[in-house]
Amino acid sequence: MLTYEAPLDDIHFLLHDLFEVSDVFAQLSEQDALTPDLMDSVLSEMAKFAGGVLLPANSPGDKEGCSYDPKTKSVTTPAAYKAPFKQFVEAGWTSLAAPVEHGGQGLPKLLGVVFDEMCAATNTSLSMYFGLTHGAIVALEKHASAELKDRYLEPLIAGKWTGTMCLTEPHCGTDLGLIKTRAEPASEGHYRLNGAKIWISGGEQDLSENIIHLVLAKLPDAPAGTKGISLFLVPKFLPDGKRNGIFCTGLEHKMGIKGSATCFMSLEDAEGYLIGEPHSGLKYMFSMMNSARLMVGVQGLGLGETAYQTALSFAKERAQGRSLSGAKEPDKPADNILVHPDVRRMLLSQKASLEGGRALAYWVGLNLDISERHPDEAERQRAHDLVELLTPVVKAFLTDQGYYVCDQAVQTLGGSGFTEDWGIEQLLRDCRISRIYEGTNGIQALDFVGRKLPMAGGRAVRTLLAEVAAFVEQCRDETSRSVLQQAVSELTETLTWLTRSAMQDPEIAGAAATPLLRMFGLALTGYLLARSADVAAVKLEQGDSRKAFLESKVLIRDFYFLEFMPQVTALKQSIVAGKDHLMQLPAEDF
Amino acid sequence: MLTYEAPLDDIHFLLHDLFEVSDVFAQLSEQDALTPDLMDSVLSEMAKFAGGVLLPANSPGDKEGCSYDPKTKSVTTPAAYKAPFKQFVEAGWTSLAAPVEHGGQGLPKLLGVVFDEMCAATNTSLSMYFGLTHGAIVALEKHASAELKDRYLEPLIAGKWTGTMCLTEPHCGTDLGLIKTRAEPASEGHYRLNGAKIWISGGEQDLSENIIHLVLAKLPDAPAGTKGISLFLVPKFLPDGKRNGIFCTGLEHKMGIKGSATCFMSLEDAEGYLIGEPHSGLKYMFSMMNSARLMVGVQGLGLGETAYQTALSFAKERAQGRSLSGAKEPDKPADNILVHPDVRRMLLSQKASLEGGRALAYWVGLNLDISERHPDEAERQRAHDLVELLTPVVKAFLTDQGYYVCDQAVQTLGGSGFTEDWGIEQLLRDCRISRIYEGTNGIQALDFVGRKLPMAGGRAVRTLLAEVAAFVEQCRDETSRSVLQQAVSELTETLTWLTRSAMQDPEIAGAAATPLLRMFGLALTGYLLARSADVAAVKLEQGDSRKAFLESKVLIRDFYFLEFMPQVTALKQSIVAGKDHLMQLPAEDF
Repeated sequence: MLTYEAPLDDIHFLLHDLFEVSDVFAQLSEQDALTPDLMDSVLSEMAKFAGGVLLPANSPGDKEGCSYDPKTKSVTTPAAYKAPFKQFVEAGWTSLAAPVEHGGQGLPKLLGVVFDEMCAATNTSLSMYFGLTHGAIVALEKHASAELKDRYLEPLIAGKWTGTMCLTEPHCGTDLGLIKTRAEPASEGHYRLNGAKIWISGGEQDLSENIIHLVLAKLPDAPAGTKGISLFLVPKFLPDGKRNGIFCTGLEHKMGIKGSATCFMSLEDAEGYLIGEPHSGLKYMFSMMNSARLMVGVQGLGLGETAYQTALSFAKERAQGRSLSGAKEPDKPADNILVHPDVRRMLLSQKASLEGGRALAYWVGLNLDISERHPDEAERQRAHDLVELLTPVVKAFLTDQGYYVCDQAVQTLGGSGFTEDWGIEQLLRDCRISRIYEGTNGIQALDFVGRKLPMAGGRAVRTLLAEVAAFVEQCRDETSRSVLQQAVSELTETLTWLTRSAMQDPEIAGAAATPLLRMFGLALTGYLLARSADVAAVKLEQGDSRKAFLESKVLIRDFYFLEFMPQVTALKQSIVAGKDHLMQLPAEDF
Repeated sequence: MLTYEAPLDDIHFLLHDLFEVSDVFAQLSEQDALTPDLMDSVLSEMAKFAGGVLLPANSPGDKEGCSYDPKTKSVTTPAAYKAPFKQFVEAGWTSLAAPVEHGGQGLPKLLGVVFDEMCAATNTSLSMYFGLTHGAIVALEKHASAELKDRYLEPLIAGKWTGTMCLTEPHCGTDLGLIKTRAEPASEGHYRLNGAKIWISGGEQDLSENIIHLVLAKLPDAPAGTKGISLFLVPKFLPDGKRNGIFCTGLEHKMGIKGSATCFMSLEDAEGYLIGEPHSGLKYMFSMMNSARLMVGVQGLGLGETAYQTALSFAKERAQGRSLSGAKEPDKPADNILVHPDVRRMLLSQKASLEGGRALAYWVGLNLDISERHPDEAERQRAHDLVELLTPVVKAFLTDQGYYVCDQAVQTLGGSGFTEDWGIEQLLRDCRISRIYEGTNGIQALDFVGRKLPMAGGRAVRTLLAEVAAFVEQCRDETSRSVLQQAVSELTETLTWLTRSAMQDPEIAGAAATPLLRMFGLALTGYLLARSADVAAVKLEQGDSRKAFLESKVLIRDFYFLEFMPQVTALKQSIVAGKDHLMQLPAEDF
């Protein structure tokens, strides 16, 4: 009963009208061939595949879930996944944005982000088998030897094989310095790995021919803590076809993403190959993580979109009560519930969060392409700064907002939202993990405040705020101008306060992290919605035929500025209160 | 793996120190016998029963759920419920606050609220079979004929029989004027009912000997809409032991409260007895609903408490990372996660929301007793006003906050929170419905703004705000004084603005409803936490031995005022923006 049609109008508007990506891509090497028409035909193929192939398997996958057979240590994924998984691979979707030299199609990363959104919207659990493969590809591409690349990249990119990220252990998730998995050098120049891993998505499954695990482990001479972590490639099947000593020992029973196998893994003298230099695993892991973090942020967006569309289709059918301004459909027993301001607030909150979140995600996706392929080094650096700075914001803010959207969608349906019939409750359950995995949103906030804001003396955030301030100067709408101006001032004041205070006391930065990331998320979404409204207003003046759509962009901006932007001030107040109110209560008195 | 101990310290503090209930009860008739010692011994019996009997059946009930047999139209509840249900009845808990003349123990309603909290904390689904019975008892007590009371009240109060509320139909939940169930007068002075009901909690089960359904239906001569609804008593088994024509036709499959049977019901020439006057059913229904709404608000509180305690016990065990101010446990591989400001914010947000919410719920519970039994009519009226005004606030605000607490508890555990092992994910699922049933929180807000605020020309809210303002004058803490003062001003300004604006345009009241209810919830919680802190400060000066506990009351107040109270201003800004930003987008352009 889920409703989903890829929001191609909005995607088109963002790509062509707001970000003018064809002009940008034309400046990047090798992208000359990607005409707007070709892009649009790729987008509509994606939409057809997501809605037609992935969506029908979504609810059956949740109901059946994954099962584990301890005798064979094998995992059975939902029956409904088998055909769509095959079609996913055969249609070549796994190679979309992968490098041409290893069999990829070399399309822009931004299109990968758009596709990720559609996949998450229609089948998050199934898509995860491919999504984590993508992280493994990125890590191999950047850090592995030519030999490992030659052997593993092509089948991973082709989707014949899938990849995993084996980081977490029973006693450590966030604090990877504590890992206990050991890697001993073996005679053949390989390593033998022993240890236990948990929460390994796709650690075992019956979908792909081989599974390539990227495993964090410690060498015998490893320094203590995070500086002693190395990264290994551990295939399920060795090059000679033999079964390697890495086994699933059980499955997690989870609140959601039940079609995604979350495995306990045991490494038992598993053969592994060192990736890059010894003791540099944490750095390499961030290559995987950054890719995975963007993808998870986009999961929040995609799940929210389907929840919203389903809530909207319910609302458009449901008649209940009368308009407070007098019956709107007097010949019927009740008015449609869209007459009620409160129902409209719920739906508009969803729509505004999604359109703003989509703009933010695509903006970062576009800059990922610029950072990798722009001919001008300064421009690459600027884009790289932006991607680094905003990756934790996309991950945390978009999953928080996506969960909020799913929650408001459930509420829009009332009791029906709580039943399995409408399927939104599954989206809420599936979305809950997005705020936790690939680094909890609290960890994203610490990354943002502790690593990203101070990068190169604060260069990235200064450039970003200058960009917003420059837009404020030329913003066509007076109210938005003054609200955005205030947001920029409050962000600047908060950063100044924080820089001064955190120098004396790093716990103050820790206390500020979560509300500060949220301030940025809210303000940047406001900025992008205001830019969207300005572009829409210009197009309307030019007599653009998408009249209703473009007018809605102006209204959504107004709604967001009235309903969401006041939170920016409230968050600033909490931040400048410092840390005492958080730290004073003795642990034993909680 | 859920952790729960009844928060007797806090309950004791609220009853004896903050509200001084023994003095209040002494003024009420018939309550002289309830000494503080007796009260405390009842409380510790409750705690023992909830933790020892209800809690162990909680997770098994979720896992097994309810099943339906279409052949016999019967429902099987979880096996784990059978013994606790029996013990619940045998120990006399169902009759705690019920009237003495029908076999009840006549204890204060406030103690019923405390017990409801413990039941919700330890087993929401099982407790619902009794909770809805309570609503039926209240409706019968107030509106039924002596004959019906004599026949039905005693077994319901004794827990031998249970009750239901049959309101919702497939096409109408919120808008009961649309109901289609018909009641035809039959020769014996009875009625024959035909129709279909949905979402009937406990509509069928294998726990009690008989089920007494209170059913909304329309008589043949009924006026259209809500003025044509009558209330009927329809027993599953008739007085002569024959099976009546009211059957379960299926069960809802739900996100949570899986141990509570949510039934589709069919009335097939069912024999029913009119309660009170014809066409007055809606009024009577509100007697049931008010009781049920308080109970649902308290469900949010109880579920949140268990989620918090479980998150806290996880946090106290979990070591991960190092304090930002330098290692706190340098001899161990990592510090306990309570060193992290962000983890503390999550836990303190939970604790403050719960302690504030508990104060609010008990305040309303105490006033329920005063409204019914105080010798002074003016005092009864004042208390009645307060209960009427704040019932929708308790229902909506406490369930929103309770859900938020469960959500933050899941987040505190990270990945473990998402697994079934720790059980918090069940609490989050169970809690989701509390924001929907017994009138969605949006409906509570409309009730608050449309019915409760205007009561007797705004008398109730004026008295309430005067009480808060009077406390501000004498509040011992300067910061709290100024923040509360500002909150009172902002509430007053918002109400003045709303009264003026809504007279011209009722949709503006509809637009203001949800944020205004939340403003009140936040401000009143702040008021009660500030009062608690003042009382604690006085006790500390007097050398009270509960030093750590009383000091925590001061810190929790400070935390709440810094982290939550700034939202009051942000909400006011959204409200005075009016309705245009909600109403302008045409329905077809969403």
